[in-house]
Amino acid sequence: MTKRQLTRPWAERVDRVSPFRVMEILTKAKQLEQNGRDIIHMEVGEPDFPTPAPIVAAAKQALSEGKTHYTPALGLPELREKIAEHYFLTYSVSVSPKQVVVTAGASGALLLTAALLVNPGESVLMADPGYPCNRHFLQLVGGEAVMVPVDASNDYAVTPSLIEQYWQAKSCGVLLASPANPTGGILSLQHLSELEAVIRKHNGWMIVDEIYHGLTYGERIHTALESCPDAIVINSFSKYFGMTGWRLGWMITPQELVPSLEKLAQNYFISPPTVSQYAALAAFDAPAKQEMESRRLAFKKRRDFLLPALRELGFGIPNCPEGAFYLYADAQGFTSDAYAFCHQLLDSAGVAVTPGIDFGANNTQQTIRFAYTTSVERLQEGVERIAGFLRQ
Amino acid sequence: MTKRQLTRPWAERVDRVSPFRVMEILTKAKQLEQNGRDIIHMEVGEPDFPTPAPIVAAAKQALSEGKTHYTPALGLPELREKIAEHYFLTYSVSVSPKQVVVTAGASGALLLTAALLVNPGESVLMADPGYPCNRHFLQLVGGEAVMVPVDASNDYAVTPSLIEQYWQAKSCGVLLASPANPTGGILSLQHLSELEAVIRKHNGWMIVDEIYHGLTYGERIHTALESCPDAIVINSFSKYFGMTGWRLGWMITPQELVPSLEKLAQNYFISPPTVSQYAALAAFDAPAKQEMESRRLAFKKRRDFLLPALRELGFGIPNCPEGAFYLYADAQGFTSDAYAFCHQLLDSAGVAVTPGIDFGANNTQQTIRFAYTTSVERLQEGVERIAGFLRQ
Repeated sequence: MTKRQLTRPWAERVDRVSPFRVMEILTKAKQLEQNGRDIIHMEVGEPDFPTPAPIVAAAKQALSEGKTHYTPALGLPELREKIAEHYFLTYSVSVSPKQVVVTAGASGALLLTAALLVNPGESVLMADPGYPCNRHFLQLVGGEAVMVPVDASNDYAVTPSLIEQYWQAKSCGVLLASPANPTGGILSLQHLSELEAVIRKHNGWMIVDEIYHGLTYGERIHTALESCPDAIVINSFSKYFGMTGWRLGWMITPQELVPSLEKLAQNYFISPPTVSQYAALAAFDAPAKQEMESRRLAFKKRRDFLLPALRELGFGIPNCPEGAFYLYADAQGFTSDAYAFCHQLLDSAGVAVTPGIDFGANNTQQTIRFAYTTSVERLQEGVERIAGFLRQ
Repeated sequence: MTKRQLTRPWAERVDRVSPFRVMEILTKAKQLEQNGRDIIHMEVGEPDFPTPAPIVAAAKQALSEGKTHYTPALGLPELREKIAEHYFLTYSVSVSPKQVVVTAGASGALLLTAALLVNPGESVLMADPGYPCNRHFLQLVGGEAVMVPVDASNDYAVTPSLIEQYWQAKSCGVLLASPANPTGGILSLQHLSELEAVIRKHNGWMIVDEIYHGLTYGERIHTALESCPDAIVINSFSKYFGMTGWRLGWMITPQELVPSLEKLAQNYFISPPTVSQYAALAAFDAPAKQEMESRRLAFKKRRDFLLPALRELGFGIPNCPEGAFYLYADAQGFTSDAYAFCHQLLDSAGVAVTPGIDFGANNTQQTIRFAYTTSVERLQEGVERIAGFLRQ
């Protein structure tokens, strides 16, 4: 297992990609389960619900009709139309189907965005803590992430003054997220407008990850496109639509970028998965929406249980996260090494959670992400076990 | 549609990615069809057959069982086992399931390979003509393709002496293909061994694209792993298994590389499409194999018709291609601008083929790729139309 056995070392970028620590937790959790232990899973960043039945039915129908060939690189025209229509119906925003690029998950959209916009040596600003893969997409194309430290005092949001403070000569854009992973924070329309003004001043690209849109529990959420029509918005069928394993997402971009994106998508992906695209055609219709709405309410109930319960135990969650399915908690009352704490919690109490260090370097050694991707009953059991663990 | 309307120019790499000329042909062909013209499609690089029924049935079954979540980044363990077993049953080669990485199509495998092995400024040798996306994957990670000109005199194969001739100080490997696109050529085990010896001398990586394996019409084909156990072999469910739209492929690598590949795959893809993986579990079983074998024989019949027919018309195809579903023809008897010729052929005779320039710069202005991805009857009609066109 040493490099010396190999022909030559692998590329240097590989050693600069951090492994997901949560995968160690997950692997250990599965081993414990195989040994008969009961584990409460609050580590996984995917809905516990399977894909809604109407979407699955559409997939089966397409399979029965032999729809198994490549599609256009930008996606099925009828799906691009449905997505454009979704913006009108949901946000009253006019989006042309020609601005829609269907991708192999939001991962595909993030990779295409990095390849499209970022020259070697250029940088993109993003929140720390944030989704860990973002900086690796930049690094893949020779770019760099400028990590902007955010904290609870600003609801973990990048602010205009932080952009001014961290913008560098070689910066070319800012990647925002609303709702954000791991914090569940949401950007208001006013906030998005203010961010856009400062990004525009620097002639930067404004990229907004909206993959948790739909999973919000307070006031109606706004897409960046409502106030920033030139933003590049990335979305996904994974979270709200419950389609993680289908690997399907999309982006909305200024139309002038689409021919370039098409060329890149042809070369890097050929096309997004076909069955997934036919399945997704049913995702915007009433039967699926009804199912998704009831799931949203279930997530809300879970959050409404878990947030006060964790606060009661002494975890620091000053703001009420309005979206996604995460609570990002300060554990400094219990540990200065949350990574070790997560392992102990799993070993000792059978509760799996994600250490903050997976999401950046900004005070993450004392934070933990709790995912409420399991039932209220299981969350209750989890909270009781954590309470017992803390009393030890 | 000018760049000036945009915030800033897109990244420079975008302008160095050539669009697929065949997409212009395809788009025009579809327009003509919408206007009522009958078009013979010999341009498309995908089997005309839908996915075999047993594979589709396995997908439906998985959907019925709610298997719609993420899988491990390296793929379902049971699929990795099936793929490893396939190497033993088909080639008598012992491959551990731990060496198998399931990917989002061969495209995903090519991207991972480039990210894993190639530092910025390093180069990989590959045949010209060859699969056009390969050089763009290298370019994505800041690497470079060294195009090695091959021609009919060597059956379009990279040779040991060509590697010696084109290897540069910053080269880190060679990408081979067997069967090759666009030429259909196959590398013998002896040839692979000789190539490996010279690549090993340079401490280079040997990467072998075997995505058309299974679609061969002569002697049994050999995987590079039979003589070169350290080769990185890339394969796909798209072509032989008839699963293009499912976006599923795999790679076999030295086991020491797998932890690095896992880390990259987690970050860039999360996981390969889940339904596709469950479908592929049925791809190695007898019912699917029977179907695929009958399709292979159909492709052979098509080649056996089309090869002499095109030669008869005056196209130069000196060697009999033993694999894939392409005939790569010299059209210098008719034109010195095969790209214009392809457009004229489509406009005038309603036959769509792919201009050689899509595959490189080595004499490709006088070559054409014919895909026999349509029935013998349609190929016959196509040949008649081409004959008429040439008589004009």
